[in-house]
Amino acid sequence: MLILGLDPSLSCTGWGVVRVEGARLSHVANGQIATDAKAPMAARLAVLQAGVAEVIAAHRPDRAAAEEVFANKNPQSTLKLAQARGAVLAACGVANIEVREHAARLVKKAVVGTGAADKRQVQAMLKVLLPGAQVAGADAADALAVAIADAHLGGRG
Amino acid sequence: MLILGLDPSLSCTGWGVVRVEGARLSHVANGQIATDAKAPMAARLAVLQAGVAEVIAAHRPDRAAAEEVFANKNPQSTLKLAQARGAVLAACGVANIEVREHAARLVKKAVVGTGAADKRQVQAMLKVLLPGAQVAGADAADALAVAIADAHLGGRG
Repeated sequence: MLILGLDPSLSCTGWGVVRVEGARLSHVANGQIATDAKAPMAARLAVLQAGVAEVIAAHRPDRAAAEEVFANKNPQSTLKLAQARGAVLAACGVANIEVREHAARLVKKAVVGTGAADKRQVQAMLKVLLPGAQVAGADAADALAVAIADAHLGGRG
Repeated sequence: MLILGLDPSLSCTGWGVVRVEGARLSHVANGQIATDAKAPMAARLAVLQAGVAEVIAAHRPDRAAAEEVFANKNPQSTLKLAQARGAVLAACGVANIEVREHAARLVKKAVVGTGAADKRQVQAMLKVLLPGAQVAGADAADALAVAIADAHLGGRG
């Protein structure tokens, strides 16, 4: 079973694919899809969409997972994030891939053991859980974390 | 020149195509893309995306237009609306269609003559500006209004 973790954002969407075989977890691939901040919104969303569609075509995940979205204090940031998420989730929907959503706290708890873990702790645990994985960056790390959490929360969904 | 007006929303996205020839405006087509409220988010977004892609393939508009989005008082509504908008705009971006954004006030002003016009006034003016057009519903009407406004605001963009 392959799980695609996604960390959507307009400037840079992270993705990571992990393989789950029983209790065994292994790294398959990860990356980041960056968009040009000077490009028009529709063009940036199309880059995210096409990038995720390409990842799905290349790895054929069985399902996808993302952190639950919530409204930010800054409404403009919320609008940008949610539009990016819309393009990314639509790419999954078009490919008939279910996207499970997990609270950020549950993702941290599943990866580090505590819902209050910081980004550094999450990234350190990734090295333990997915030894040898070359992680493309912070957004790809977040995406791998949500994929791992989804594997652990397997029964749910 | 064909202009595609879009009124994105998760439950029902309106669209309308108008033809502009010099100062002459005419109706080409309009419709609404509804999604199943019980379906998962990714599947609903995929329906919007595919629906808009189909409209673009059928009518080959030269450009598209939508109202500027702004954060609603209800953060959950804002998140839903913005995700729907992300899927819809991505469909335009994938087809290389520019999407121009206009303030709601300017759309009303361009269609009715006042930025304070209500929905009823906008719909009444549509009958005058696009005689004979059978409008699929309130969302399609809003989409036609933004297409007309975009035609009037032609020089901009």
